[in-house]
Amino acid sequence: MVERLSDAERAAFFRDHPNWKPVEGRDAAEATFRFGSFAEAFSFMTRIALYAEKADHHPEWFNVYDRVEVTLATHDAGGLSQRDVAMASVIDAAAA
Amino acid sequence: MVERLSDAERAAFFRDHPNWKPVEGRDAAEATFRFGSFAEAFSFMTRIALYAEKADHHPEWFNVYDRVEVTLATHDAGGLSQRDVAMASVIDAAAA
Repeated sequence: MVERLSDAERAAFFRDHPNWKPVEGRDAAEATFRFGSFAEAFSFMTRIALYAEKADHHPEWFNVYDRVEVTLATHDAGGLSQRDVAMASVIDAAAA
Repeated sequence: MVERLSDAERAAFFRDHPNWKPVEGRDAAEATFRFGSFAEAFSFMTRIALYAEKADHHPEWFNVYDRVEVTLATHDAGGLSQRDVAMASVIDAAAA
């Protein structure tokens, strides 16, 4: 079982990762990224996919053309966990 | 300008592509595909992405783990066009 973030950890996460916002009605985080083209957006997704597979932790995501909307939560924890903190950091770095 | 499908063409499309359903309130088609793993789902997405880039026609899609939900429509046509028929056939073949 993966532990959910404490209230203090959750607050620190959103403070330190300004791309990410809480999801209404759910212990999850969402962010939207824009790129210069579909090729750039899908390259970003591919980089995240390789990380996801290695970490065995997968995003929920939506893509249309140059936009990627990502939602993070940990199914086994019923909400945000340190796995999501780690993945958000990887995603932010890939989008930078 | 790309032409929208005629009513007869639209009916033929949904008849010939049973994976696809009309989207409520919008001239678009949607389908959901399940795979054996995230790796399989993302491999499917990668194959579609390569086609999309070559055809300069891009899907709207959502993925979580082994599930991929795809919506097709042609922005320039304001609805379904032959580009979507072609892409649906490619997607069906990739999922088969």
